[in-house]
Amino acid sequence: MSTDEDDVLAANRAFYEAFNAKDLPAMDALWARSASVACVHPGWNVLAGREPVMASWTAILGNAAQPRVQSGAESVYLFGDLAYVICRELVSGSPLAATNVFVREDAAWRIVHHHSSPVAVS
Amino acid sequence: MSTDEDDVLAANRAFYEAFNAKDLPAMDALWARSASVACVHPGWNVLAGREPVMASWTAILGNAAQPRVQSGAESVYLFGDLAYVICRELVSGSPLAATNVFVREDAAWRIVHHHSSPVAVS
Repeated sequence: MSTDEDDVLAANRAFYEAFNAKDLPAMDALWARSASVACVHPGWNVLAGREPVMASWTAILGNAAQPRVQSGAESVYLFGDLAYVICRELVSGSPLAATNVFVREDAAWRIVHHHSSPVAVS
Repeated sequence: MSTDEDDVLAANRAFYEAFNAKDLPAMDALWARSASVACVHPGWNVLAGREPVMASWTAILGNAAQPRVQSGAESVYLFGDLAYVICRELVSGSPLAATNVFVREDAAWRIVHHHSSPVAVS
């Protein structure tokens, strides 16, 4: 039997798998339907609401030149029906840090917020 | 009587007030004691745990050249005893986006995670 922590990590992996497969329906299914969603892509301003967030994924996953994201070093922070994962991302050799927030909705962990930002390499 | 949303916004304001006053004891008091904390400063790698997070605040607030942060455009996302605020920051004219996560601990809203990142200006 999987723990909540396992399930949140699986949802986090599914997010990066949908990203790398450029699978827009899978990405759409991962985002919450009842709870309000938001997103901060690297270098972007805040996107709030399902429509602008999904429009951004349509653009990003529809971009043939969009490189893959390798994720790792995940830590899960669990608070009942809300959880967030802090992890690392690597895109074309550039490191980023991400905060991914999940809510339990219809017995599944769905994303409500993704915030990813570049880590300066000195 | 204040709502949870009011109280979370007040905690978010107190965070930026402590920052701008370079008030390390106030900043320390705002961070959770029981829950695990983490922090991603703009361009920094992930800091996990109270010791590295508070060491970063000691360095930042102890830096005489550290400019003020102006915060605004706050949105609160409330999930029982956990909440997060997505807001804008302005530092020396440069825009940033922030995700601040709060947990209700000892009847007070305390910060468990701060993630701030630059918004690219085109």
